[in-house]
Amino acid sequence: MGSKYPRSVRYCLPPWILTLEVALILVFLFFTNYDNSSKDRKKLMGTYGAVFQDITVMAALGLGFLTSSLWRHGWSSMAFNLFMLALGVQWAVLLDGFLNQSFFRKVVISLSRIQQATMSTMSVLISAGAVLGKTNLGQLAFMTLMEVTVFGTMRMLFRKFFLMEDHISMMHIHVFAAYFGLTVAWCLSKPLAERAEKKDQMAVSPSLFAMLGTLFLWMFWPSFNSALLNSPNERKNAMFNTYYALAVSAVTAISASALAHPQGKINMTHIHNAVLAGGVAVGTSCHLIPSPWLAMVLGLMAGLISIGGAKCLPVCFNRVLKIHDTCSVHSTFGLPGLLGGINYIVLMTFRASWTNNPMISYQVLIDTGALSLSMAMGLASGLLTG
Amino acid sequence: MGSKYPRSVRYCLPPWILTLEVALILVFLFFTNYDNSSKDRKKLMGTYGAVFQDITVMAALGLGFLTSSLWRHGWSSMAFNLFMLALGVQWAVLLDGFLNQSFFRKVVISLSRIQQATMSTMSVLISAGAVLGKTNLGQLAFMTLMEVTVFGTMRMLFRKFFLMEDHISMMHIHVFAAYFGLTVAWCLSKPLAERAEKKDQMAVSPSLFAMLGTLFLWMFWPSFNSALLNSPNERKNAMFNTYYALAVSAVTAISASALAHPQGKINMTHIHNAVLAGGVAVGTSCHLIPSPWLAMVLGLMAGLISIGGAKCLPVCFNRVLKIHDTCSVHSTFGLPGLLGGINYIVLMTFRASWTNNPMISYQVLIDTGALSLSMAMGLASGLLTG
Amino acid sequence: MGSKYPRSVRYCLPPWILTLEVALILVFLFFTNYDNSSKDRKKLMGTYGAVFQDITVMAALGLGFLTSSLWRHGWSSMAFNLFMLALGVQWAVLLDGFLNQSFFRKVVISLSRIQQATMSTMSVLISAGAVLGKTNLGQLAFMTLMEVTVFGTMRMLFRKFFLMEDHISMMHIHVFAAYFGLTVAWCLSKPLAERAEKKDQMAVSPSLFAMLGTLFLWMFWPSFNSALLNSPNERKNAMFNTYYALAVSAVTAISASALAHPQGKINMTHIHNAVLAGGVAVGTSCHLIPSPWLAMVLGLMAGLISIGGAKCLPVCFNRVLKIHDTCSVHSTFGLPGLLGGINYIVLMTFRASWTNNPMISYQVLIDTGALSLSMAMGLASGLLTG
Repeated sequence: MGSKYPRSVRYCLPPWILTLEVALILVFLFFTNYDNSSKDRKKLMGTYGAVFQDITVMAALGLGFLTSSLWRHGWSSMAFNLFMLALGVQWAVLLDGFLNQSFFRKVVISLSRIQQATMSTMSVLISAGAVLGKTNLGQLAFMTLMEVTVFGTMRMLFRKFFLMEDHISMMHIHVFAAYFGLTVAWCLSKPLAERAEKKDQMAVSPSLFAMLGTLFLWMFWPSFNSALLNSPNERKNAMFNTYYALAVSAVTAISASALAHPQGKINMTHIHNAVLAGGVAVGTSCHLIPSPWLAMVLGLMAGLISIGGAKCLPVCFNRVLKIHDTCSVHSTFGLPGLLGGINYIVLMTFRASWTNNPMISYQVLIDTGALSLSMAMGLASGLLTG
Repeated sequence: MGSKYPRSVRYCLPPWILTLEVALILVFLFFTNYDNSSKDRKKLMGTYGAVFQDITVMAALGLGFLTSSLWRHGWSSMAFNLFMLALGVQWAVLLDGFLNQSFFRKVVISLSRIQQATMSTMSVLISAGAVLGKTNLGQLAFMTLMEVTVFGTMRMLFRKFFLMEDHISMMHIHVFAAYFGLTVAWCLSKPLAERAEKKDQMAVSPSLFAMLGTLFLWMFWPSFNSALLNSPNERKNAMFNTYYALAVSAVTAISASALAHPQGKINMTHIHNAVLAGGVAVGTSCHLIPSPWLAMVLGLMAGLISIGGAKCLPVCFNRVLKIHDTCSVHSTFGLPGLLGGINYIVLMTFRASWTNNPMISYQVLIDTGALSLSMAMGLASGLLTG
Repeated sequence: MGSKYPRSVRYCLPPWILTLEVALILVFLFFTNYDNSSKDRKKLMGTYGAVFQDITVMAALGLGFLTSSLWRHGWSSMAFNLFMLALGVQWAVLLDGFLNQSFFRKVVISLSRIQQATMSTMSVLISAGAVLGKTNLGQLAFMTLMEVTVFGTMRMLFRKFFLMEDHISMMHIHVFAAYFGLTVAWCLSKPLAERAEKKDQMAVSPSLFAMLGTLFLWMFWPSFNSALLNSPNERKNAMFNTYYALAVSAVTAISASALAHPQGKINMTHIHNAVLAGGVAVGTSCHLIPSPWLAMVLGLMAGLISIGGAKCLPVCFNRVLKIHDTCSVHSTFGLPGLLGGINYIVLMTFRASWTNNPMISYQVLIDTGALSLSMAMGLASGLLTG
């Protein structure tokens, strides 16, 4: 990586990152504090700690290995993934503290804040799937800081002006991250597309690693979707719905992949992506769905859309838009995320028509706005970063 | 896979599976409901949820990677494993509900039901180890539905007529699944054995993946053996006994494997199988064993039997019976399962002779019957499915 | 492995190990008992059980895969790792019981005892990183028994005579294990260094496995550092401090590795080692650090020291001392462990000067003594074993 840059650039990057790290330490020195209330302590010992661990496993292992299948140097994508995770979490904790507290008090570091920071940083890891192989360490560090800042600001705006719940605003992560990644990839890909093409060759063994990443994400997704919900009943619904949506989308993805192939074989990349589409699609509305069949329908649709997207879109993307979406981030996170957002809006509309509650129909408008806003923000900030 | 079938068969399989999935969704739509009692909610938050997650990890990761070592396309065995797991769990939940509730009420989906469904589906994943590489997607889907149905019916019979505990009837899974798989493999293997032979070549890297699967099973086996026990004391005993049996069988397997090899080297396949034999053997009686040495003796015997079986049996199996047991399912799950069953009967006999309780000696008779029944059921239904 | 020994040695080793295993079973038969108090039962169900599982995952998976990168036969290092873990835990439980109870009562097997035994055995797994590839099964079994015995005795001495807490004495494991391993490697390496050199070639796929091990260690290290602390507040501090130290050392290690390489590339081995250095360094004092910045500084220093050590030391080690430290155990565990010990002493000194408490300054003396003692014990017993 980075060997195409002049020697001087390559030499000044790592010291710059080390300086950044030292600056972060100084900010932590002056502005932060541990949360010493006993509430946080109890949370850590209970299920909350277990859910936090699941999310760390998803971020470090799952997303790391998911993107490891394509590269000549698969391990470098792992190392970059770990680098972005570690840097992003530190920055996201600070940012979350600065945006939500007054500037005069110290930022209190609590478990739920670190957990939200980890989830925000996952947006960077998702986006990175579209640009890895075209960037060097410095660009990734810059992208991490930018994306975490924009996503954090967006969530604060949602919370302040739209009174949106944490869970809903977090679930826009997939749409935001996918379009952010695609836009950055569009800005970067022009001169490098040919070189990257060669690295797309897949071997069997890295593909098994990607399968490992997929499985870890598949297994722990129910924890991710239920992490920010407070009522135990909502959490239970969220876990079960996500479980069913994932099971159906796994079955659908594998059969549809065999159907799409002329010889009935299963395409590896399709599986890696479409198996997870159900979990993405069900994310926004998982705590509201009252019975499993709706989640299963969503899983079925997400699986089909994801396979369809992976089959048809790369051709037109590569030709018309000159975007080279290396890990098919768009069909894994972008399209199912849109499906989930639309489904949430439809669900709220139904509820509004049942209860004749104008509040809820107003809420629907806001959600539509939020969905398009997060898409637009993704596009705009991606363009800016690019 | 499947390239040996005429084009028409290959094309009609995936749509058939998608139709099956849609049918399952419809059944879920009309016949199921979430459990909204607060009891289930609390279970999910406590250790019960953690145990459920361990079992999902074992099923998806452990068994998936355990069988991934042998194939030219290791990843396809992973994909098939995930496919069977996702399909089997959906069907097993429905079946369990239909068999245990009246037909007029809706099936209530609770965490413990999904957990038992996952454990039932593991029988399919174990059997699949004997037939993978010889089947296509449609055959596997059919096998999944058949095996889950037969196993579910068998467990219901045990519960209704023999008043057997859930834990004991679940532990017959190993014997049942191994003989089911072997019979199916016997029916399928004749014309294809030569082709499969070639795929048996092992490379180092897939073997590391299989080791990963073995390790995940090894680490989480105590959760599996204690999952269906209710009293905390029994659970604790079950976990400790399983832990010790596994530790001893790991040491035994590695030394015995070095002993069996003419140059003192360790055979990879032996390790993958024999390391787990202790956990299988101790399964049935793990909650009754009062001190560690008995579990350790069981682990020692299981390790030796498993290595012996893996060393001697394949030769006679391949020659005489023309069965090609690709993942040596028989020596991993079949023989140690038998050992465990016999050990349970012996233990109950001792207890009967101590207490002079005719009830228990009657129980012993039933257990012997159940063990042979599960073996016979495995053989018969395997023949039918084949 | 072992093919360089005469045939007779190779044949008598495995039976010897099986005899050892039978002897262990006999000892367990006569001298042990399960803990049947309800206290232990509750612990198992709560977070304690989860922490125990995390540590098993770290020992079996993390350390197993960490050392799997270098060998021609990566899987054999995995098998040896499992073998040493299973054997070491059995012996450590017995030893811990014999040293801490009177000889006339039976050893009570409780969860916390198994957990401490697992942690003691990790010292063997760390040391093994320095000698794997140069030893056979029998030598490893002997080394396991020796090292567990010495480490157990050392911890008992610390507890009896210095009144040291369990947590502190356990954290000397890194320094002890690294120097033990190095000394054994020094004794063994002379005739075999040339052959081992050839096995140092790395391939991409095993390196991904080592990355997997690193990630598992990285994710579960907070559990390791907080496992032996009793007060919930100390546990929480320990977890957060470890988390931050690991995050900073990951960022530092990746940038420093790029800085050290003439072409700005990232060295795989550096990453595997230095990423974990933060967790090692923060270990001893993690429950005392009140705010994150100190942990972050420690992480930064540990990352730099570890990369520096990995860069410079192998040259002089190989030339001057003729030690061949195959998995760079010294720079991963030895140097950061020393840093952590020194930091703990400095921290205690500051506290002593604040409070003017002579007790604490006396404590500091003891700690300095303990640190050098564990280093000396590591060197001496390693020499003896070698």
